Amino acid sequence: MISKESITNDLNTVRLRSPLVHNITNYVVMNTTANTLLAVGASPVMAHAVDEVEDMVKIASSLVINIGTLSENWVDAMIRAGRVARERGIPVVFDPVGAGATSYRTKTSLQIIKECKPGVIRGNPSEIMALTNQKGNTKGVDSTSSSESAINAAKLLAKETGAVIVISGSVDYIIDNQYVIKVKNGSPMMTRVTGMGCSATAIVGAFIAINKNFLLASAHAMAVMGIAGELAAQKSNGPGTMQIHFLDELYKLSGKEIFTLFKP
Amino acid sequence: MISKESITNDLNTVRLRSPLVHNITNYVVMNTTANTLLAVGASPVMAHAVDEVEDMVKIASSLVINIGTLSENWVDAMIRAGRVARERGIPVVFDPVGAGATSYRTKTSLQIIKECKPGVIRGNPSEIMALTNQKGNTKGVDSTSSSESAINAAKLLAKETGAVIVISGSVDYIIDNQYVIKVKNGSPMMTRVTGMGCSATAIVGAFIAINKNFLLASAHAMAVMGIAGELAAQKSNGPGTMQIHFLDELYKLSGKEIFTLFKP
Amino acid sequence: MISKESITNDLNTVRLRSPLVHNITNYVVMNTTANTLLAVGASPVMAHAVDEVEDMVKIASSLVINIGTLSENWVDAMIRAGRVARERGIPVVFDPVGAGATSYRTKTSLQIIKECKPGVIRGNPSEIMALTNQKGNTKGVDSTSSSESAINAAKLLAKETGAVIVISGSVDYIIDNQYVIKVKNGSPMMTRVTGMGCSATAIVGAFIAINKNFLLASAHAMAVMGIAGELAAQKSNGPGTMQIHFLDELYKLSGKEIFTLFKP
Repeated sequence: MISKESITNDLNTVRLRSPLVHNITNYVVMNTTANTLLAVGASPVMAHAVDEVEDMVKIASSLVINIGTLSENWVDAMIRAGRVARERGIPVVFDPVGAGATSYRTKTSLQIIKECKPGVIRGNPSEIMALTNQKGNTKGVDSTSSSESAINAAKLLAKETGAVIVISGSVDYIIDNQYVIKVKNGSPMMTRVTGMGCSATAIVGAFIAINKNFLLASAHAMAVMGIAGELAAQKSNGPGTMQIHFLDELYKLSGKEIFTLFKP
Repeated sequence: MISKESITNDLNTVRLRSPLVHNITNYVVMNTTANTLLAVGASPVMAHAVDEVEDMVKIASSLVINIGTLSENWVDAMIRAGRVARERGIPVVFDPVGAGATSYRTKTSLQIIKECKPGVIRGNPSEIMALTNQKGNTKGVDSTSSSESAINAAKLLAKETGAVIVISGSVDYIIDNQYVIKVKNGSPMMTRVTGMGCSATAIVGAFIAINKNFLLASAHAMAVMGIAGELAAQKSNGPGTMQIHFLDELYKLSGKEIFTLFKP
Repeated sequence: MISKESITNDLNTVRLRSPLVHNITNYVVMNTTANTLLAVGASPVMAHAVDEVEDMVKIASSLVINIGTLSENWVDAMIRAGRVARERGIPVVFDPVGAGATSYRTKTSLQIIKECKPGVIRGNPSEIMALTNQKGNTKGVDSTSSSESAINAAKLLAKETGAVIVISGSVDYIIDNQYVIKVKNGSPMMTRVTGMGCSATAIVGAFIAINKNFLLASAHAMAVMGIAGELAAQKSNGPGTMQIHFLDELYKLSGKEIFTLFKP
């Protein structure tokens, strides 16, 4: 299934096609998300007005929905865009930021999943657990549960929703009805930069835009994310330089680094 | 007209007077825009509430309107601020981000131009073409048309609106009723960083605050932008370091680099 | 009172406990604020929806309210969150960004102070003066008054509100009913990066979460801010690299640098 070659192929395809990725995401990471998508070779657009989200998603190759700083109007726009995407077969990835931290986040997440039927859901362990009524250890938008503790919840969620579930952590798990793929790349320094999870979701958005096998596309995206993160961490003196080097490494990443560093 | 001396003079004047530039701009680039204006020597303020935009613009030396992540309330605030600016003779630059991508963006852009009468409109080729009912090749908020293909549209728009039109691309064109100025500075790496176009618009905002000749002020701003971009690209390993070095180079830019690098 | 040891102790406690800091802040600095809090060792969460702010603040260790890009709904959320924080004894720091620049900002600031009773108010000289009906020299959101000129206003404000008042500038003053603490760390390059004041407020938010002596906690926070800023400025070539090195230095800061550099 996943291999160094398949990761490299998908990365090259993203760069070749430069898919338009429509993001309805949070204020904290909008700039980072746009830069991450540009660095990996995709073409980002941010638009959230109810007056235009349906028009915008129609010209996009995928849709990223992220509830990091959700509020009523934004959720309305997310659902409108997500429905149009679903009807037209435009792939959707959903990031349930902070699900479990407040009931508003959990409730909204479940509503978005129901109405938009995302092809991929990416979260940290406690977020994934919250979506199946399990109690993880959450601290605001950060998880203090291990990835392993969320695997059963992810399998259940995959079954219920038909989506690929990505649990990110020191080991990433990419899970569907049948398979569990592990990706062991990454660096602890990534947890010290805000929005790295949101960046992962955006990269998944770029890869599902060019590969309809969402399980593999998501695993490829997480591998690319993790390898770029490892390379960036080696050159960094802290979270500031980390953020910058991550974009550079993502931009420069080639088959060579993937062949050397990929850890399944 | 434009010369190394005139660019340097305007840059020095911006630094000396540090004009207050009021920005009603998009979520993606607010931080970048504020840092760009600080780096070039201006004093940025961001304010968008209908409760205060009219008061804020009154104390500003120029107004930047950018519809990158527009929505109803924000457009209302843009128009209120733009009208007060027009009445008081405070220079306005308008960035029609994504005009042509959705009808909401095109329609709103035309409305803002009509109600606020901006002195300068800066966009990429497809945005400028969209404002004159010509069809450019747009991809979300990115243009895939060449700058040259938008020159006639820009001339028409300049005639219709009385504004200076700036088309940015690998060559920038600054166009009014009579003249076409070319600026050939810049680097392809600038297209890999989100919001570089928005930064250009903000720098135009700083220069029209101190030079009432909007054609020259805009050309000076684009030259400063492009030269700082070239210098930054030389020191960068990718789009992450590019973003950072751009701010440093903009901050350090002096007549010396302008004299060596300006390409008319 | 304040000493190298007390600063180091509080910094270590922040890192050890990693308090959840709930921020209702402005669009310009959300990313910077989150990264600053992560770098200093705290755990940031951004949430502003009226549907969840009360739930979110209940699980937080402190609340940061910052009106940098205020609008009606946001002010409503700030006040709701602030009231719950007050009732539950959760420490609140308030940043009256741009008070004095528009009457909306001044009026809103006074309303927030009245309703939420923040334990700390941090602003630049003209903001602090505006809150006591004194006229400082303001330029949008930047002060052109000296810190010294705001000391009497701060003493008055401390008396009226019971809050600790922090005036930041080339010398920071931390003032309550009885004491005035000075912190002389920092670098002029900090004024060239947007949101450094907002970052200071956020760091205060992290320190009041772990030290109920708000006067000392605020002084410790300002010292940490200033020392990290000095170290970053030494390694920077301009405001771009400054921003990045500031996060790195904040992350790496230890008792060693505090002992060498703290300037009371």
